[in-house]
Amino acid sequence: MDRRSFLRTSALGGSAAAATSLAAPAIAQGNRTLTMVTTWGRGLAGVHDAAQRAADAITEMSGGSLTIDLKASGELVGAFEVFDAVTAGQADMYHGADYYFTGQHPGYQFFTAAPFGMTPQELVNWYYHGDGHALHDELGKIFGLKSFLAGNTGPQAGGWFKKEINSPDDFNGLKFRMPGLGGKALGKLGASVQNIPGSEVYQALASGAIDGTEWIGPWADEKAGFQEITKTYYTSGFHEPGAGLSIAVNRDVFDELSPAHQKIIEIASGDTHQWNLAQFMNNNGAALQRLQAGGVKTLEFPDAVWNAFGKAASDTLDEFMSDDLFATIRGSVVSSMKSSSGWITLSEGAYRKQRDRVLG
Amino acid sequence: MDRRSFLRTSALGGSAAAATSLAAPAIAQGNRTLTMVTTWGRGLAGVHDAAQRAADAITEMSGGSLTIDLKASGELVGAFEVFDAVTAGQADMYHGADYYFTGQHPGYQFFTAAPFGMTPQELVNWYYHGDGHALHDELGKIFGLKSFLAGNTGPQAGGWFKKEINSPDDFNGLKFRMPGLGGKALGKLGASVQNIPGSEVYQALASGAIDGTEWIGPWADEKAGFQEITKTYYTSGFHEPGAGLSIAVNRDVFDELSPAHQKIIEIASGDTHQWNLAQFMNNNGAALQRLQAGGVKTLEFPDAVWNAFGKAASDTLDEFMSDDLFATIRGSVVSSMKSSSGWITLSEGAYRKQRDRVLG
Repeated sequence: MDRRSFLRTSALGGSAAAATSLAAPAIAQGNRTLTMVTTWGRGLAGVHDAAQRAADAITEMSGGSLTIDLKASGELVGAFEVFDAVTAGQADMYHGADYYFTGQHPGYQFFTAAPFGMTPQELVNWYYHGDGHALHDELGKIFGLKSFLAGNTGPQAGGWFKKEINSPDDFNGLKFRMPGLGGKALGKLGASVQNIPGSEVYQALASGAIDGTEWIGPWADEKAGFQEITKTYYTSGFHEPGAGLSIAVNRDVFDELSPAHQKIIEIASGDTHQWNLAQFMNNNGAALQRLQAGGVKTLEFPDAVWNAFGKAASDTLDEFMSDDLFATIRGSVVSSMKSSSGWITLSEGAYRKQRDRVLG
Repeated sequence: MDRRSFLRTSALGGSAAAATSLAAPAIAQGNRTLTMVTTWGRGLAGVHDAAQRAADAITEMSGGSLTIDLKASGELVGAFEVFDAVTAGQADMYHGADYYFTGQHPGYQFFTAAPFGMTPQELVNWYYHGDGHALHDELGKIFGLKSFLAGNTGPQAGGWFKKEINSPDDFNGLKFRMPGLGGKALGKLGASVQNIPGSEVYQALASGAIDGTEWIGPWADEKAGFQEITKTYYTSGFHEPGAGLSIAVNRDVFDELSPAHQKIIEIASGDTHQWNLAQFMNNNGAALQRLQAGGVKTLEFPDAVWNAFGKAASDTLDEFMSDDLFATIRGSVVSSMKSSSGWITLSEGAYRKQRDRVLG
């Protein structure tokens, strides 16, 4: 995923909308309106959908007594200003990907996705039945936020390449677009990691300015049109194995809400995580079939490349270990992931392999 | 899973509780109380937890204006009377596994689990972004119910065996406990399928009255103590690859609720599905590690056995194809499953395999 791409949709018309939307949260006739800002351009498939679904569910479940006024990026504040806007009380809550806020605290990485980290099922195991939500809360307290998991893109694809990758050496000098910690890890393999705004990635790949790019997954990748430029698609990637999205509410605002309204926000967030993950997984499945039917060749990186990814990811995360809370969260993630993984592999993993083999 | 086992916990004391709990739904000062009956004994780990979580979430989100009074099996009606109790208006809603009600309509099979059917992720893809919920609704209309997915045990284990299974012939004459359509399919392989109440399965396996049994998964299986009798555990099974649990509300009752209360039931159900699935998956992961540390040997059935499972499962489902709605639902399930499966395998499946290999 990419920070800048989400600005595209909202770049036009944002300031016009902003002029009429700066009113503080209003309390009228016992009703409350909370302003939700987001890191997504209005209408951006999947991610804006998650924000909208959560907002609507909260409004509808409260019978309008708690109305969520959703301001997409640029309509009140810019995408990457939402964190500070909510901590400062300029907006009441945000919906976004928390790893955009690793500048505020590196621990936020784990509540979206860390390289070589958790899949969505492993994430919810940890979040709801391990220490995940409590650690999210501990991070939030530092900044006056109350946080909830509220969306997921599912595992992100390895990406589109002009030529096949046969060894870790093939990344040496490769001009590849990958944001965040994944890109940082790829740099350790010698890749020339490019930061290119989302709106320019297609042209950069087409012109040869870059040799490859990751994006999100088949659904979004197909919309972006990368299959028109190259047919070489690595489906599995190490960098974001399940990107969680979050809602964070200003803690003073949250504490003043009734227990019913607090519970409504909590449960709407949980439901949205599942609904949004299923949306991405369902649409990715259908898009993958279309891409394959259109001649796209799906590949997996060889073992030696995964070995190199693993070392680079670990080295990248090590650089933040001087922060105690980061170290605590990382330790908790690794421990929970190990505990969850065996059963997933031996039950669902083994079943799907055999079922798909038998059914053909 | 087993119909009868869920009666155990509630068998004692059930009638005493029933005497005080027959009041009709009350409307007082604008508040409403709905009676939720369940197919689970009070306190039964995982499944009762799902019912309780959904009930509490509804009560709390409504600020008590919609209070759910949970009656476990035996407290108002028996576990397998809940469907008829809700259609008749004796209770307002139930929480249970819909495949207990295939006698009412065989199509209900697919909303819990069908042999060789969907995993939990495939189920939610279909339910929320395919035709799943609409078809559940179509079934419900026949009986005056409004249904929602509201829990999941995850994939159920293949089961405990006294000796290893090396070919489909090894099921010939094998005395094995497996309820439902899975058991029916196993019978086609020559197994002597036993229907044994849950409370008697441990003793039957210990005494040699049966040669093996499936139960739920490591968390519940460990509680049942089968590892004390045999160390041979097949972790992946064909019979219930992800058992969904449902809430169904009497349709007249549902239609009279405010839009806010209707939405609260819908969203609480969705959130509960995710929370409960994560509960089972998380606890199964930890229990599997303990079982393995205690000397349990985890095995997978060989390909030839899976081939035989596949044919038997298909033949078993074929027997219901004269029912048009069953055929429609089955067709929808198979089509959605095929569409979902490719991406799950190439993204999450490939990632987990490589990550776990690299991390060791």
